[in-house]
Amino acid sequence: MHPMSAEQSQPVAGGLGRRSTPAQTPAQVRQAARSGRFNGHTSGLADRHVQGNLVVLPAEHAADFLRFCQRNPKPCPLLAVGEPGQPGLPGLGADIDIRTDVPRYRVWRHGELVDEPGDISALWQSDFVSFVLGCSFSFEQALLDEGMRLRHIDEGRNVAMFRTSTAAAAAGPFAGPLVVTMRPLKAADAIRAVQITSRYPAVHGAPVHIGDPALIGIADLSRPDYGDAVVVHADELPVFWACGVTPQAALVQARLPLAITHAPGCMLVTDLLNHQLASF
Amino acid sequence: MHPMSAEQSQPVAGGLGRRSTPAQTPAQVRQAARSGRFNGHTSGLADRHVQGNLVVLPAEHAADFLRFCQRNPKPCPLLAVGEPGQPGLPGLGADIDIRTDVPRYRVWRHGELVDEPGDISALWQSDFVSFVLGCSFSFEQALLDEGMRLRHIDEGRNVAMFRTSTAAAAAGPFAGPLVVTMRPLKAADAIRAVQITSRYPAVHGAPVHIGDPALIGIADLSRPDYGDAVVVHADELPVFWACGVTPQAALVQARLPLAITHAPGCMLVTDLLNHQLASF
Repeated sequence: MHPMSAEQSQPVAGGLGRRSTPAQTPAQVRQAARSGRFNGHTSGLADRHVQGNLVVLPAEHAADFLRFCQRNPKPCPLLAVGEPGQPGLPGLGADIDIRTDVPRYRVWRHGELVDEPGDISALWQSDFVSFVLGCSFSFEQALLDEGMRLRHIDEGRNVAMFRTSTAAAAAGPFAGPLVVTMRPLKAADAIRAVQITSRYPAVHGAPVHIGDPALIGIADLSRPDYGDAVVVHADELPVFWACGVTPQAALVQARLPLAITHAPGCMLVTDLLNHQLASF
Repeated sequence: MHPMSAEQSQPVAGGLGRRSTPAQTPAQVRQAARSGRFNGHTSGLADRHVQGNLVVLPAEHAADFLRFCQRNPKPCPLLAVGEPGQPGLPGLGADIDIRTDVPRYRVWRHGELVDEPGDISALWQSDFVSFVLGCSFSFEQALLDEGMRLRHIDEGRNVAMFRTSTAAAAAGPFAGPLVVTMRPLKAADAIRAVQITSRYPAVHGAPVHIGDPALIGIADLSRPDYGDAVVVHADELPVFWACGVTPQAALVQARLPLAITHAPGCMLVTDLLNHQLASF
């Protein structure tokens, strides 16, 4: 299970058992994170609501990062950008304080991971800009809602992620490979998944590849670069979606003196409904 | 080239060279068929307009055939059903006379092909009911309009069609295999093709299968059951759509005393615009 504070007075069911998770409001999840009671994975929490990847950067790099996102909309779908120095993101939830409301953060100095705190108030700078990017939890929920099975969820694993041979479009210091998630699906489900995820461009949208992993530079599906491997059966196709780890990889490569992200799986839970993101 | 009448006073460019075909109105194509000047393939003619598969049956079988179509909407998307005995289909074109306006017909007796006339006026019965079903030309045009290449069109061939191991849902005497068309596409185009064809449920809609042909009972892609083989390259996926030959196969299997269809590729050209069929 996920790391939880010892003083867990009001339990928040964390983790990957998405089907059996009790309903939570986004504000309850954020409050639990804010109070330090919860620093675990948010998969399955407030599952009708949009969760987001977080990137926090000094303002001097904001324009480059925005251009990076604009040039790579599938891996980097921007849901919100904060005002410089402001910890609020009122478009995603009136009470959000981005310094405290993510269950766990990662602090990067010169491209090196140096800490995983549950709160970044002490690190906050008056020039910090917050970026929240869409996350595959939203489209996975749309697939689950259609009765589809996703193996990594059934098996309680993180989704398998791979660095591809496709380069993301660079902007300023931000460059790196397109990172993808992979979900094995039977052909009919793969077709249905293209239809469903096409409706959600703000959370990575349609797949970027189906079939032979070698064509996008993936040598071995059993050895993901991030997350956990899952088996692909003979009657299944591996289906690949652009992944929000792409900007994190670019951030590491940029070697900025200071940057902050969420910790993997520990997302910002917003008040937006997944359904609000549907483009048709 | 396609069979053309010797007295071809007003040429109608037939055949498969879809990109270079001059614009024609649907009424011009029908008039050319009606007058006997044209009995060729309609691929690429009036290419913004919907073309249809034709089935003509005695009224006593109409209800069973309607149920067959209702139960198999992907291979049998009904665009129009005529009134018993009436050769008009005003919903598809004010002037349509279904006895003359298809360039070439096939006459089936007890499941055997007995004739391929250019006119069925002499065979028409007061109890005949006409069924017009959507055809893949409409979604192929949508794919071409997006800049996609389709190999069978580039090579001037008919699309490859295969009988699958999937049974169509039976109704009355109508039963048989699901027949599919196959187009080889690179993964990114396959994903885009799912998106585009999903918008056109009235002309077969999204693919029914992608990838391993053996999973749907196809032993050898180089040996189609109908149409012409095309090569599938190593960096391509075979993509399979439900096909309007499915009802023809069911019709043959039903061994009705008399039934009439269009001849392959010689479709009814309607006044409907392809774009009018888009569901979103």
